[in-house]
Amino acid sequence: MKKNVLIIGAGGVAQVVAHKCAQNNDVLGDIHIASRTLAKCEAILESVREKNAMKVPGVLRAHAVDAMDSAAVAALIRTTGAQIVINVGSAFVNMTVLQACIDTGVAYMDTAIHEDPTKICETPPWYGNYEWKRREACEKAGVTAILGVGFDPGVVNAYARLAIDGWMDEVTSIDIVDINAGSHGRWFATNFDPEINFREFTGTVYSWQNGAWQSNSMFEVGRVWDLPVVGEQKAYMTGHDEVHSLSANYPQADVRFWMGFGDHYINVFTVLKNLGLLSEKPVTTAEGQEVIPLKVVKAVLPDPASLAPDYTGKTCIGDLVKGVKDGQPVEVFVYNVADHKQAYEEVGSQGISYTAGVPPVAAAMLIASGEWDVGRMANVEELDPKPFLTILDRIGLPTRVKDAAGDRPWNA
Amino acid sequence: MKKNVLIIGAGGVAQVVAHKCAQNNDVLGDIHIASRTLAKCEAILESVREKNAMKVPGVLRAHAVDAMDSAAVAALIRTTGAQIVINVGSAFVNMTVLQACIDTGVAYMDTAIHEDPTKICETPPWYGNYEWKRREACEKAGVTAILGVGFDPGVVNAYARLAIDGWMDEVTSIDIVDINAGSHGRWFATNFDPEINFREFTGTVYSWQNGAWQSNSMFEVGRVWDLPVVGEQKAYMTGHDEVHSLSANYPQADVRFWMGFGDHYINVFTVLKNLGLLSEKPVTTAEGQEVIPLKVVKAVLPDPASLAPDYTGKTCIGDLVKGVKDGQPVEVFVYNVADHKQAYEEVGSQGISYTAGVPPVAAAMLIASGEWDVGRMANVEELDPKPFLTILDRIGLPTRVKDAAGDRPWNA
Repeated sequence: MKKNVLIIGAGGVAQVVAHKCAQNNDVLGDIHIASRTLAKCEAILESVREKNAMKVPGVLRAHAVDAMDSAAVAALIRTTGAQIVINVGSAFVNMTVLQACIDTGVAYMDTAIHEDPTKICETPPWYGNYEWKRREACEKAGVTAILGVGFDPGVVNAYARLAIDGWMDEVTSIDIVDINAGSHGRWFATNFDPEINFREFTGTVYSWQNGAWQSNSMFEVGRVWDLPVVGEQKAYMTGHDEVHSLSANYPQADVRFWMGFGDHYINVFTVLKNLGLLSEKPVTTAEGQEVIPLKVVKAVLPDPASLAPDYTGKTCIGDLVKGVKDGQPVEVFVYNVADHKQAYEEVGSQGISYTAGVPPVAAAMLIASGEWDVGRMANVEELDPKPFLTILDRIGLPTRVKDAAGDRPWNA
Repeated sequence: MKKNVLIIGAGGVAQVVAHKCAQNNDVLGDIHIASRTLAKCEAILESVREKNAMKVPGVLRAHAVDAMDSAAVAALIRTTGAQIVINVGSAFVNMTVLQACIDTGVAYMDTAIHEDPTKICETPPWYGNYEWKRREACEKAGVTAILGVGFDPGVVNAYARLAIDGWMDEVTSIDIVDINAGSHGRWFATNFDPEINFREFTGTVYSWQNGAWQSNSMFEVGRVWDLPVVGEQKAYMTGHDEVHSLSANYPQADVRFWMGFGDHYINVFTVLKNLGLLSEKPVTTAEGQEVIPLKVVKAVLPDPASLAPDYTGKTCIGDLVKGVKDGQPVEVFVYNVADHKQAYEEVGSQGISYTAGVPPVAAAMLIASGEWDVGRMANVEELDPKPFLTILDRIGLPTRVKDAAGDRPWNA
């Protein structure tokens, strides 16, 4: 039984995490939030207070911390008494925050794979470059570290496990499809940090097919998917975190990730990429100033958090899992549909942040109850999906299943 | 009779000017070139020597000068003994260089209108904001200052005057059409300084129609032109320098400028503009660095000078002038066709630089001979076009005319 949460980060996802922790503070205890900029943390707490989100009276406090400084994070863990750290800061801080958790013996979770700011798209499996190197250290310290427990990666890993365990004897393929059919009304914007968003798509597209890593380039492989609620949508094979753990756990299956992109997004991305404006390497202006082009692109684009008030429409994210049951081919689509406007009304964030921010809170509740407090490092598909999906049903992200037998709640 | 030339600037156009001055140094005398970066001037002189361009033995010298410092330019004029200054530096230095010429009593010319780095697209007529305010000062000092004597503005102003004087009793419209049907083989590049190139197209499109200034936005008005050699080409109404003097000299005529753009250029431009990446106003990155987006775009794009070796194809720039002759409507198209590869072979620059750099040398030769040494400020259409076009025929930019009587050399 662990309690008291420390949230690292103060972006759109952190805001959702803070609201959801507050709504469940009877289980989670004290809530602390820390980032480099104290004012951003305080703004989030202010929005929690405005919505009256705290279920029971309790501690709700903001802190300034440099999450790249492992010792500073460890000190904050000690002074706050937090036993559960939810890291939703930039993808560059995973390893320092994880180390702080190992050093202090508290539970760790994040929602995206660690990245080195100077490297784009490393050798697969990506988790092998950073996080998995700390497996033994976690085991030795008895530290629960749940990697990638947002929606994708995260919930979609649980969906894969649910489908395989529940409806098949063996799995042959896992296709994760992420469609945002919402509209923010701007000429162009990314739904989360432009720097992280574009970095996802500038490298090699790795997929796991026929028992080996396959390489493609971005927007090379696309297909139209016909999905519940959002209908027909074009999605492209994309490199993504969960492919790198699911392929290790289910090496016999093809594992692919598909993300929906409109022609407009692809055009803007292509122009920026081909001009060199998405580069993380510095260029020198005629005036002699050293500048990283991607940082300038980020600076001119809308702040993703600013999109929330006007965002309408829905997201559909799910897993099409194919396999064999009793010698017959079988397939099942496990999915969630989320609504941008509902998310904004509840927690002041748009749907993309909502789907990423609710799952780590469900995971924190399972660590608090002990069900997921496994005392080792784990990717989500290595944990029992049922208590996770049960909590998600209750706290805002219900799971449905569509197969030959119809379209229904997963546990119907 | 004036002699000895000082070239200000060391870009692609300056290279053409240096070569052409060298080829005509029997008339022009000493040749000096000066810019902020001495090495760039020396590289140009090196290329002049490589091509053995000097017609007769003579002075050919490089200097460093900050052209924003009027006193420094004046001092350089005095020490070099130059009597003719060809300013092909950035559009931001016109007024300081012009002042240096007024202070020293030497002839001045440039190829583009003065710009303030912090202002995009000022009130028409553009010349009224800066250059024309020094008319009296030139008159008083007896200084010849020829404004905008590149190709467009410049040669096209002479084309308008030629057509009006030669083939009509009154003029009703002047449409200047600039088509580059060449190919540089890069994914995207601008043909001259990206900063100046994009600034041309981010402001209001001013045209002079029905006796008044009309406003449009960029790419709002387009039409297909069927031109000699380059064939059918789409061009868009664009703001441009020569509209601002021709409309003052021929207020009874509609004056429009049309520039050819491919769909690819328009798409890249539209993405960059809509994202805010063409802004000359600084933005602040997440890391706190102040950056002007347009400077970063310039830094990632190919250096226009680097396009020259691989540039193929032709340009066609001309004036469609309509009017009335003996009570009947009449129209004539006066034009030049230039070849990128020929330009490179002759002077090491591509065709766009060539068409801009040859005309000021023809003008310098007319100042040297006295024919255009008028002792006052003038736009090109205010000077006799015939000696100018005669020299251009000889030094690389022949003029042709197409009308009801056929397609022929202008003086056939």
